[in-house]
Amino acid sequence: MRAAIIGATGYGGAELIRLLHNHPEIEVSSVHSSSQQGTNINESYHHLKNIVDLPLEAIDPVGIRQKAELVFLSTPPGVSKDIIPGLLEQGLKVVDLSGDLRLKHREQYEKWYGLPAAKEALLEQAVYGLTEWEKEKVANATVISNPGCYPTASLLGALPLVKEKLVDPSSIIIDAKSAVSGAGRSAALNFHFPEMNDNFRIYKVNEHKHIPEIEQGLKSYDERFDTITFSTHLVPMTRGIMATIYAKATSPITEKSLRELFQDCYEKSPFVRIRPEKEYPSTKEVYGTNYCDIGVTYDERTGRITVVSVIDNLVKGAAGQAIQNVNIMLGLEEKTGLDIIPLYP
Amino acid sequence: MRAAIIGATGYGGAELIRLLHNHPEIEVSSVHSSSQQGTNINESYHHLKNIVDLPLEAIDPVGIRQKAELVFLSTPPGVSKDIIPGLLEQGLKVVDLSGDLRLKHREQYEKWYGLPAAKEALLEQAVYGLTEWEKEKVANATVISNPGCYPTASLLGALPLVKEKLVDPSSIIIDAKSAVSGAGRSAALNFHFPEMNDNFRIYKVNEHKHIPEIEQGLKSYDERFDTITFSTHLVPMTRGIMATIYAKATSPITEKSLRELFQDCYEKSPFVRIRPEKEYPSTKEVYGTNYCDIGVTYDERTGRITVVSVIDNLVKGAAGQAIQNVNIMLGLEEKTGLDIIPLYP
Amino acid sequence: MRAAIIGATGYGGAELIRLLHNHPEIEVSSVHSSSQQGTNINESYHHLKNIVDLPLEAIDPVGIRQKAELVFLSTPPGVSKDIIPGLLEQGLKVVDLSGDLRLKHREQYEKWYGLPAAKEALLEQAVYGLTEWEKEKVANATVISNPGCYPTASLLGALPLVKEKLVDPSSIIIDAKSAVSGAGRSAALNFHFPEMNDNFRIYKVNEHKHIPEIEQGLKSYDERFDTITFSTHLVPMTRGIMATIYAKATSPITEKSLRELFQDCYEKSPFVRIRPEKEYPSTKEVYGTNYCDIGVTYDERTGRITVVSVIDNLVKGAAGQAIQNVNIMLGLEEKTGLDIIPLYP
Amino acid sequence: MRAAIIGATGYGGAELIRLLHNHPEIEVSSVHSSSQQGTNINESYHHLKNIVDLPLEAIDPVGIRQKAELVFLSTPPGVSKDIIPGLLEQGLKVVDLSGDLRLKHREQYEKWYGLPAAKEALLEQAVYGLTEWEKEKVANATVISNPGCYPTASLLGALPLVKEKLVDPSSIIIDAKSAVSGAGRSAALNFHFPEMNDNFRIYKVNEHKHIPEIEQGLKSYDERFDTITFSTHLVPMTRGIMATIYAKATSPITEKSLRELFQDCYEKSPFVRIRPEKEYPSTKEVYGTNYCDIGVTYDERTGRITVVSVIDNLVKGAAGQAIQNVNIMLGLEEKTGLDIIPLYP
Repeated sequence: MRAAIIGATGYGGAELIRLLHNHPEIEVSSVHSSSQQGTNINESYHHLKNIVDLPLEAIDPVGIRQKAELVFLSTPPGVSKDIIPGLLEQGLKVVDLSGDLRLKHREQYEKWYGLPAAKEALLEQAVYGLTEWEKEKVANATVISNPGCYPTASLLGALPLVKEKLVDPSSIIIDAKSAVSGAGRSAALNFHFPEMNDNFRIYKVNEHKHIPEIEQGLKSYDERFDTITFSTHLVPMTRGIMATIYAKATSPITEKSLRELFQDCYEKSPFVRIRPEKEYPSTKEVYGTNYCDIGVTYDERTGRITVVSVIDNLVKGAAGQAIQNVNIMLGLEEKTGLDIIPLYP
Repeated sequence: MRAAIIGATGYGGAELIRLLHNHPEIEVSSVHSSSQQGTNINESYHHLKNIVDLPLEAIDPVGIRQKAELVFLSTPPGVSKDIIPGLLEQGLKVVDLSGDLRLKHREQYEKWYGLPAAKEALLEQAVYGLTEWEKEKVANATVISNPGCYPTASLLGALPLVKEKLVDPSSIIIDAKSAVSGAGRSAALNFHFPEMNDNFRIYKVNEHKHIPEIEQGLKSYDERFDTITFSTHLVPMTRGIMATIYAKATSPITEKSLRELFQDCYEKSPFVRIRPEKEYPSTKEVYGTNYCDIGVTYDERTGRITVVSVIDNLVKGAAGQAIQNVNIMLGLEEKTGLDIIPLYP
Repeated sequence: MRAAIIGATGYGGAELIRLLHNHPEIEVSSVHSSSQQGTNINESYHHLKNIVDLPLEAIDPVGIRQKAELVFLSTPPGVSKDIIPGLLEQGLKVVDLSGDLRLKHREQYEKWYGLPAAKEALLEQAVYGLTEWEKEKVANATVISNPGCYPTASLLGALPLVKEKLVDPSSIIIDAKSAVSGAGRSAALNFHFPEMNDNFRIYKVNEHKHIPEIEQGLKSYDERFDTITFSTHLVPMTRGIMATIYAKATSPITEKSLRELFQDCYEKSPFVRIRPEKEYPSTKEVYGTNYCDIGVTYDERTGRITVVSVIDNLVKGAAGQAIQNVNIMLGLEEKTGLDIIPLYP
Repeated sequence: MRAAIIGATGYGGAELIRLLHNHPEIEVSSVHSSSQQGTNINESYHHLKNIVDLPLEAIDPVGIRQKAELVFLSTPPGVSKDIIPGLLEQGLKVVDLSGDLRLKHREQYEKWYGLPAAKEALLEQAVYGLTEWEKEKVANATVISNPGCYPTASLLGALPLVKEKLVDPSSIIIDAKSAVSGAGRSAALNFHFPEMNDNFRIYKVNEHKHIPEIEQGLKSYDERFDTITFSTHLVPMTRGIMATIYAKATSPITEKSLRELFQDCYEKSPFVRIRPEKEYPSTKEVYGTNYCDIGVTYDERTGRITVVSVIDNLVKGAAGQAIQNVNIMLGLEEKTGLDIIPLYP
């Protein structure tokens, strides 16, 4: 299977190249960029020199079809929705890592993204690829909308509780912390090293684009869910997300049954690892890999459950989950090309 | 005024030395340590060479009284409560930076600290020095119990809402993030550079010693308060705490009135800076200083208020607030020796 | 004494504001910027809110003279040389933190900076303000050219050996390492947090603008000096420079006499601290201060001397040394406003 | 092929586990530790949970032989030399990642390590595994002494010049910078996060154990080499080494011929990447991989050549090179299991 990557110069694109290099069934046949055509991808990323030697090409569906059966799009907001129809016409399979096809209601997209939404038909065709919860749909998909990084960490942590209706829908608060690579590769003052190093920021309070995506995900498993409180912070580190999730339990629950709930829920999910009682994951423990590590506890004093969910934002939160979805879509073993050990330390 | 520092080899002690070096009215006359007597403080801290030249001495109240009128204790849990009575007998004024005198109920201390509590009389005599909220008591105190770093950030952010009964007492969740200096100067695997760098941890979920201290503080301004949910995280940085505080508003409130509430509340507090609408502080913006910067917003969708409160854990969260308290206790201008600009970047 | 700061929005300017805030004799009366006129300096730097409240003004010598007697320029290359003559005409004293007046030979400036050089007369008038070595000239100066950050660390470390002709002039190699704030406040891909964090770079090998400045400084104390080898590296940290200086001793020397040489040389220099045998300074030990800490050793195996010199690039390498020079120029005690303890940790 | 790892709880051991997980021909059959027997390796390293499930066993050559044909030792100084003879008796192949067998002259080891040296016979049998330069010997080895991290970066950078006698033997200075993981996993004050973050240190000036190893390596390709100057610094980052190597050219050389020399020298070395003119590698560009990236330039002003050589200290500087050596020893393709792309950013 040959794959093209559109938007290859961003961090998501670079991570697809890294991970697919060790995928036994998928080969990167071409890389595409609207801004840096004509240069080699290894001029944008010196770490690829002597390993990957591909020119950045224009985005042409017909040309892409001649070299590939599959396309990954890792493009800024508002771009992929106009490219994908042309790719589908050529009979290509598509995984969209951008947010363009994630929100099922067009008005939600237009409100939170401030851009025109994709066509209804495309939104309907797109399968939301939160792998662990949508395996069947993913298996039959032609277009996959790959989840956002924050929604991946948040939903994998919250859904086991939500699905079983164990928590009060109005009580959910998600306090999320992300590494700076989540902001992409464009230099800006806030991400200038001396401004971000030894610093901790909060940003986009109650305004992050991922809020409606998380709400949509929760609602799809318990329709009583409406709005949530969701805050995003920037940590002076390169990779990793932690979502600390708070919810009121509808009734008291033991540590043991709480843990069994999560373990049962993810029994067949090789990339979700549930920690034993009193143990919580750190972001570095999934560094560079597709794992989502989860710790969970119940506080008798307050009646609240705390779930701690960590991922690598560029892997399980982007390129890794995209490949996991493709594996399932192609009928391959889910872990193909992704069975690697976190880089620690 | 001459001051002795007991427990001078920890970060709190070193920070007292740094700040008092530029205090026009207080001079460090001696430093004390139970573990490193006989060596010079500048052997523990090379940055003090050619500036501070003091031997670490044994802890002897009579000897201390000959050189000082004031004592700062920056000792591990369980130590200061046994030293302070002897210091008071000598007529010394005392500021305790440890947690020994913070909890008014002895059984609370014994439950959360796992150590024998201080005597009732000493607890009654000690004034809880959350400066902005206790100026009068501080002014008349002989023994000040200096607040913990997390409680300082949390209470300064939450109390304006609590005092006015604007939030549902059962709804408060505080998600706190601290720099690693908060863990003290003892090397341990979790704080070993390669394990902590590029990493983000959660720790002591629902078990942190500062929980009862925050609850006690909230309760003292609205007795309907009982338990809160409080989580602590470690950020890969040296200094700084951010407390992200979530609370359900009892009724809708405008951004304008919310901001006015905070501004009025801290009008006479030179170290608390309230940010304008849509602006939130980062930890680096108070680096090395006694400021507490606060941002606040109300989310109409969820009815929740989010308060963001940042401090330097070693200054406003320890040595700086201690000096601020002493200034008030001595009748000096509150900012004496603390009127410095944050180190940025 | 009132001072204006031109180029106040860069890190050098911000650091002048920080340090002068605690200077008893100098007050910042106005701040100037060619790019951000009309906004308040505390909009560029939120850490200044509630402390410094100054609008950024246009650069007008006559207007400046009405409010100030002294001007600091912290401008990009090629700017100050055209502004200073107008300031001098108004009778203002000037300290230039840029590189425009550092090289005495115009062709050197034009070769290394790639810009037209300042007029000969201005270059002659300007005193090179490496304080410890030029106190007399500084005391009588009207225009001070403040040294570069790398030359400050390098020359303070090398000159004691050079002046005594203890090393072979052709043997000097300086391997310098700088924090990222040395690159200024303009965001760029190389300084984008995810690219610089957990990374170590070398840059401008044999091409750094500071090479001729260091060579000029060495030559002025031993004219046999000609070219040196000088390399610059970027360390993933905010502040600090270390220069590791290697030189062949002309004859064997003992550790003791080597140390005495340095101690004698800097006996009257309160900001230079010589470390005892086998002890070397780290950059954090001078953090936020005007100190230059020096360690030195002789290797019998190779006959080479190694000098380790550390400074805070924004203080002793820029704003701090500028103030130290002004203190001397004004007849104040050298340490006025600079007698602070490094921020550690 | 089955492999045992002795000293599995250190960073070198953990890295062997990570890399061998994706090696198609070698499987980790057992892990051994003298200090933590009985616990599971994934208790020491939580990132291994659900992936690697191996108890830490005692070190028993007979037992090891039943499960393995190959042994990696990643032990502290002075340990492996006593274990290896027993392993060889059992017919096991051995790769020693410690320094015990690197120095061919026993008195050198005893001088620099301060410990009794290995027996002469064992030293003679051991092949120094600087792969690119010793492929033939490695192919026929039974015991491989894996090079130190600093010597790997230094020798790969310097040997092309040394072998061709292009540089003055007495002129070599190597200024090396290492990430903190090079110090191992034992917590200590110098590596405590608040002390090392935003800090840059020099250490063991002229006293590092790797000095005689580098000198021995240089001498083996040009016997005129005797002593070198070598300095080591700690960078606040997790992984990576940069060696900046300075040497006087015996005669002027063009950039082009310099580059061709390096390219020819490493033409058949897939892990050494030579950069084009004016381009220098950063440590992050080899992060997590076995690559050694080299930049080189000649300065006409000084007649000096500067070589910049970067590696990941835990991979090419330890576990990766060990596996590369085993590949060659076993007749496998050199890149087997190591053909991965650096983790960037």
